[in-house]
Amino acid sequence: MTTLYGFWRSTAAWRVRIALHLKKLPHETILLSLPAGDQNSEAYMAVNPQGLVPFLRHEEVGVGQSLAIIEYLDELYPDPLLLPGTALDRAKARAMAQLIACDIHPLNNLRVQKYLKAEFSLDQSRVDVWARHWIEPGFQALEAQIDPQTDYLMGNCVTLPDLCLVPQLYNARRVSTDLTRYPGLLAIEARLADIPAFSASHPDLQPDAVPV
Amino acid sequence: MTTLYGFWRSTAAWRVRIALHLKKLPHETILLSLPAGDQNSEAYMAVNPQGLVPFLRHEEVGVGQSLAIIEYLDELYPDPLLLPGTALDRAKARAMAQLIACDIHPLNNLRVQKYLKAEFSLDQSRVDVWARHWIEPGFQALEAQIDPQTDYLMGNCVTLPDLCLVPQLYNARRVSTDLTRYPGLLAIEARLADIPAFSASHPDLQPDAVPV
Repeated sequence: MTTLYGFWRSTAAWRVRIALHLKKLPHETILLSLPAGDQNSEAYMAVNPQGLVPFLRHEEVGVGQSLAIIEYLDELYPDPLLLPGTALDRAKARAMAQLIACDIHPLNNLRVQKYLKAEFSLDQSRVDVWARHWIEPGFQALEAQIDPQTDYLMGNCVTLPDLCLVPQLYNARRVSTDLTRYPGLLAIEARLADIPAFSASHPDLQPDAVPV
Repeated sequence: MTTLYGFWRSTAAWRVRIALHLKKLPHETILLSLPAGDQNSEAYMAVNPQGLVPFLRHEEVGVGQSLAIIEYLDELYPDPLLLPGTALDRAKARAMAQLIACDIHPLNNLRVQKYLKAEFSLDQSRVDVWARHWIEPGFQALEAQIDPQTDYLMGNCVTLPDLCLVPQLYNARRVSTDLTRYPGLLAIEARLADIPAFSASHPDLQPDAVPV
């Protein structure tokens, strides 16, 4: 029995949804409303004391943090392997994933946007400027690292950083980032969009999605 | 030949210094001044297109991102192993490390502090309030996860999250965080301070340290 706690627009939860789909793992989803503060409820804090999504319950145990969850699934269900190759291949894949998961995403997620609005009276357009300020150098560094001869971020197999890239591009569009500067990333995104695990896990298709 | 690019006060670089010391790997250090902007120089961007520290050159290859570097070293030099045990043990260790490396540290590092001061005219005391706002819930969640019967964050061996905890506590003190709320974390820190790899890698002992 596998349960993913998530929220349709959480880009970190989307990474895990892609992994579950790629590995064809049957699972149920428990949806929390982050704007309504469900993640701070006593019931959820008993599940995940950090009060964040995603969180995975798998059989009798629980694991938090999207990248840790994905590596856990990769160790238990290695088909398809999301960190294949040599130690150096894995290091480069993890570094690209962390470039997004440590240096871009934490600065732009909902809790940070809320705080900027509440504490510094920023309107959405200034929050978007803030978000782009952290997205752009990250994407620029990622664009500089890709090999135009390969299909995905790390060669011709889907690997961990691809699971981070697609949600981060979705998030970047929401804050009006000019993505034409990153043609390599867009080409990879277009190839990934053809893979059912990526398209089926899209936020807009989740049961709790709010139509714009 | 192993070279670490770092800066004395970078908490992410400190994590890697601890790993290099624990694994007794001879290495040289190239020190960049982050306040002076050395990380944005053309020469350094040719080494690491992300323009951040730490970055490791090992033999003919380069790896960025502190956690990716440490896992790479752990795969190549597994003594002592920093991610020991079962897949679940590794998942929990990675999740604790990412709680610090994704949810606390990216919001408080130098580039963010500089931006807050420049864009929102915050003085240091308000930047400290910002920093504590992200440190406190993270430490609270970490404190809730530790087992008071064990010496370190994950049992009685030093593991990856311990390498993140000590630098993050140092950083938390710099912004006047009330650490008395986290007695478990402080007890672990005190035990880790007795290990030469942790004490020798302390920022204040680095050649580029600026006396306060």
